Amino acid sequence: MFETAELGQTVGKEEYEREVETLRLRLLDVQTRLKEANFPVIVLISGVELAGKSETVQKLLEWLDPRFVETHGFRRATAAERAFPPFHRFWRRLPARGRIGVFFGNWYTEPLVARAYKEISDADLVAAMTQVNTFERELAAGGALVLKFWFHLSKKAQKKRIGKLLKDPDESYRVSDFEREYSKRYDAFLKVSERALSLTTTAEAPWVLVEGDDKRYRSLLVGRTLVERLEKALSAVASKRSSAKASAVVVETPPARETLGRLVLDGVDLSQRLDDDEYERELDELESRFGRLCRKLERQGKSAVLAFEGWDAAGKGGVIRRVVGAIDPRLYSVIPVAAPSDEEKAHHYLWRFWRHVPGPGRISLFDRTWYGRVLVERVEGFANRDEWSRAYAEINDFERQLTEHGIAVEKFWLHVDRDEQERRFRERENTAWKRFKITEEDWRNRSKWSEYEVAVHDMVEKTSTVEAPWNLVPCNDKKFGRVFVLRALCRRLERHLG
Amino acid sequence: MFETAELGQTVGKEEYEREVETLRLRLLDVQTRLKEANFPVIVLISGVELAGKSETVQKLLEWLDPRFVETHGFRRATAAERAFPPFHRFWRRLPARGRIGVFFGNWYTEPLVARAYKEISDADLVAAMTQVNTFERELAAGGALVLKFWFHLSKKAQKKRIGKLLKDPDESYRVSDFEREYSKRYDAFLKVSERALSLTTTAEAPWVLVEGDDKRYRSLLVGRTLVERLEKALSAVASKRSSAKASAVVVETPPARETLGRLVLDGVDLSQRLDDDEYERELDELESRFGRLCRKLERQGKSAVLAFEGWDAAGKGGVIRRVVGAIDPRLYSVIPVAAPSDEEKAHHYLWRFWRHVPGPGRISLFDRTWYGRVLVERVEGFANRDEWSRAYAEINDFERQLTEHGIAVEKFWLHVDRDEQERRFRERENTAWKRFKITEEDWRNRSKWSEYEVAVHDMVEKTSTVEAPWNLVPCNDKKFGRVFVLRALCRRLERHLG
Repeated sequence: MFETAELGQTVGKEEYEREVETLRLRLLDVQTRLKEANFPVIVLISGVELAGKSETVQKLLEWLDPRFVETHGFRRATAAERAFPPFHRFWRRLPARGRIGVFFGNWYTEPLVARAYKEISDADLVAAMTQVNTFERELAAGGALVLKFWFHLSKKAQKKRIGKLLKDPDESYRVSDFEREYSKRYDAFLKVSERALSLTTTAEAPWVLVEGDDKRYRSLLVGRTLVERLEKALSAVASKRSSAKASAVVVETPPARETLGRLVLDGVDLSQRLDDDEYERELDELESRFGRLCRKLERQGKSAVLAFEGWDAAGKGGVIRRVVGAIDPRLYSVIPVAAPSDEEKAHHYLWRFWRHVPGPGRISLFDRTWYGRVLVERVEGFANRDEWSRAYAEINDFERQLTEHGIAVEKFWLHVDRDEQERRFRERENTAWKRFKITEEDWRNRSKWSEYEVAVHDMVEKTSTVEAPWNLVPCNDKKFGRVFVLRALCRRLERHLG
Repeated sequence: MFETAELGQTVGKEEYEREVETLRLRLLDVQTRLKEANFPVIVLISGVELAGKSETVQKLLEWLDPRFVETHGFRRATAAERAFPPFHRFWRRLPARGRIGVFFGNWYTEPLVARAYKEISDADLVAAMTQVNTFERELAAGGALVLKFWFHLSKKAQKKRIGKLLKDPDESYRVSDFEREYSKRYDAFLKVSERALSLTTTAEAPWVLVEGDDKRYRSLLVGRTLVERLEKALSAVASKRSSAKASAVVVETPPARETLGRLVLDGVDLSQRLDDDEYERELDELESRFGRLCRKLERQGKSAVLAFEGWDAAGKGGVIRRVVGAIDPRLYSVIPVAAPSDEEKAHHYLWRFWRHVPGPGRISLFDRTWYGRVLVERVEGFANRDEWSRAYAEINDFERQLTEHGIAVEKFWLHVDRDEQERRFRERENTAWKRFKITEEDWRNRSKWSEYEVAVHDMVEKTSTVEAPWNLVPCNDKKFGRVFVLRALCRRLERHLG
């Protein structure tokens, strides 16, 4: 696999200087257009130690407008990083649209090193690379351009370079125990790298092999590849825009409510009620049971993500208040999901949720969630069909990463019928301190009831999993709904905490 | 001190319900006005264990519009949190303007507990409370309303409450080892609390004592205090606005350049130069020396903040590239400081810099800095006199928190004279790949040269400290400037790393 990067490529000084002059202009030009095109560029720098990765990045930074480039370095995860799912640290550092993020050390580092040191099996490596592919596919689907450079140096060339550096008193510091150690394991790393690269050379994000021996050759190769891929992506975006305009008349109509027959929400028995006495007794008992469980969760350093969706006025706020009513406020965060900030808008739609993944011992409650993508964004047309239909898999992947990290994920749809909703809307309008809760928008949403019913049906069908199940909560009686949620949570945590 | 919170205050059920109805409306009303008034509200909840803090916060959350409230809980700092200066975790969680942040466990928690357990001396506690006062004063000066509630329970009442909770199988979980332990140390905590409260009852942020025995009494007291303080703050903002309009004609004029005589930048010898040979030799040697030092810094888990300011076209970018030229990209971040994002704009001006404080083993290089407040914001009038003249002390405090945490802080002003700047502007206009660097704004800034000279003079006078000194770098010769910066950095790190 690496033979093509051992050809002894070189570039002469004159040719180099001539080429660089043009290259710099093209780079600045694509960077300017990138800001308007509004997608992020993710550049991965990986490969053999001492193959000139760092020097090449330096060159790139010299050529580009540095205000719109950021470099991030990752080594193996630290203890603090291990407290979160593995991709958390990468999500947090993704560049915003219009910017270039250079990832020096990245999602390949940890699995490759672990495998080279035989800490994980080949199957583990395959699983890790599958996850990497999913991640990169999601980034690409979200509009990102993902560029992956693999710097290569033959064993002989690496040895030679080490020897040369060690002889130079100004350069010998570059060779630390790390590089020495690595060089001893050259063969093991080569084998693992070959395996990893062949698993992750995808259509969305292919690897570019860079022969690392000649300074000028490798800088030019990386610079040119960047500029060419960017130019291609920019014109793709431009042509997509004009064709989108041309074909904007074709609008997908979801199947009508009637043609679908029975939907999942139809199966919810909304007649269930609790009288005041039962409610008080059950609530007391459940809150205290839940409180104990949360203390146990904290002691065990585990965590939970609770997702709340539901019809307007179904009682989300009231349910969430009861859920946290019995627990120490230092253990949880309630995250109300409203309009995204401009930083959030400039990122992948899942980015803002990764920000709030709970650390060990903590619980995050989301008042509205990432399911907005397949609910309001679908129904209102804020996301196109491509985007929302892809979202089910993206969401499943997100939640699986949480549950695999040992985070309990539990999701609730609070269900009421249309009559009950109307009654509550009216009540809100007539109660002074409830009035702020009702807006024109609520009435508008209500008029799309049957479209939402279909969206909920699809959502449950596609994203209710054993590890992260949907609970459909009958909330025509608020008391019944609250007790239902608390009971489900207690059961879940009991299973989760053993 | 706590006698006034042991009076046996109670509120009857009827009175409570009547009062709550009005209170809720007033709370919702002030919340709506808060969004427009555009300042943040910071509510601290502290005090004796089991005095109803958590229950009271629950009530507040029930009364307020939860979309604009966030609660944060802090205990003693975790290992991951200790990797940063103590206030880092609080800065990161400050509410944006228009929002209410409830801090449950907060900047008082760590010093109080540490003192009660005799881990720190009384002098340490005094120093910690002085820092707290500075922090709260900065928040208040930045427009925040800071409300501090101290929940109190007599020793007897606390014992009684524990006994009662333990008897109730649904409530006994609330009493963990932590509460038992705390109750045993009641007297020690009381003494320390009294000391801390008396040190921190300031004009900007006085403590409100809350008798915690009666559920209804304490909820009403906190709710009413919140509403009253908010109403007062809102009308103060409103009247300030109208008076600001009325008095907008009075503009402070800084003393003219001429009347000040010799300025600090006049002392910089700009004639210093390096020829190519010297430059190459020195740069090589310094980069390698700096590279070694950074590896050492990483091994020792220390960190550094490097601040770069200077005239437009003085060569900041080039200097920064040489500084990082020799170090592993995984060790540093370059933070270009441009226009703030909307999240950044919604916070205190120092918030965006706290975001980028480096963790152990890492270096943050700021390309433009928090000094924007006393440079461009001062000269352009984006900050008023009050704001920028206060900023010197705020900045000193920020940097002192970094240096006290063991972070090396070094600051560079890159200096050129007006003629050299003009030459470079022209050169940029005439070089294709430099053209993007020059804008109308650069020419505009240039016309305010003498105002900037005064601003730099004041800045150096007020913020160059032994621990975080300013270096005035002669940059008429770029080569000389680069070598100067690298040499200063090497010296600093050598001292810092021992």
